[in-house]
Amino acid sequence: MHRLLVLYPPPVDPGAFERHYREVHLPLAARLPGASGMSFALGIEDGPYFAAFQADFASGEALGAAMGSPEGRAVEADVPNYASGGAIVLTFEVEEVAPR
Amino acid sequence: MHRLLVLYPPPVDPGAFERHYREVHLPLAARLPGASGMSFALGIEDGPYFAAFQADFASGEALGAAMGSPEGRAVEADVPNYASGGAIVLTFEVEEVAPR
Repeated sequence: MHRLLVLYPPPVDPGAFERHYREVHLPLAARLPGASGMSFALGIEDGPYFAAFQADFASGEALGAAMGSPEGRAVEADVPNYASGGAIVLTFEVEEVAPR
Repeated sequence: MHRLLVLYPPPVDPGAFERHYREVHLPLAARLPGASGMSFALGIEDGPYFAAFQADFASGEALGAAMGSPEGRAVEADVPNYASGGAIVLTFEVEEVAPR
């Protein structure tokens, strides 16, 4: 399983970030083809990031195809509209840990 | 749902990190009470982090109880044994996004 993790440093205007993120960006992200386990957090108080998003894909190829699709390009093109503090994008293969 | 996300900047010795992480740290983390959806990544190539770990809990209280338990204290005490580049620990409430 391959994961897309986006970390957002604090923006200039947290309220404007949250409004745009909920009203515009998440509806775009929800259309990413092949994504599962999508989740996000806003207003994170500990640590260096204000917000986080993640989505899982069956493989690195599926993640690449999603980001290169029209839906993925729309997601990427929207980021500068709200992420005034920038965005760190990580992609990686994940391994699961079984609880004991 | 409340998430624990740990991000590791690059360590001095990636091979030693990976060995200790797989052989010692993950078996300790697997015993965290109330954790679900545990997953990790090693050797992340894009971005500022070498490794990532996450686990989900029913609530912030459950996460706090897990980290304060003997198992949680053992996990925390082990981090300096391998994380020579440090570790960023984030905890936050997550919202899920339904695919469209």
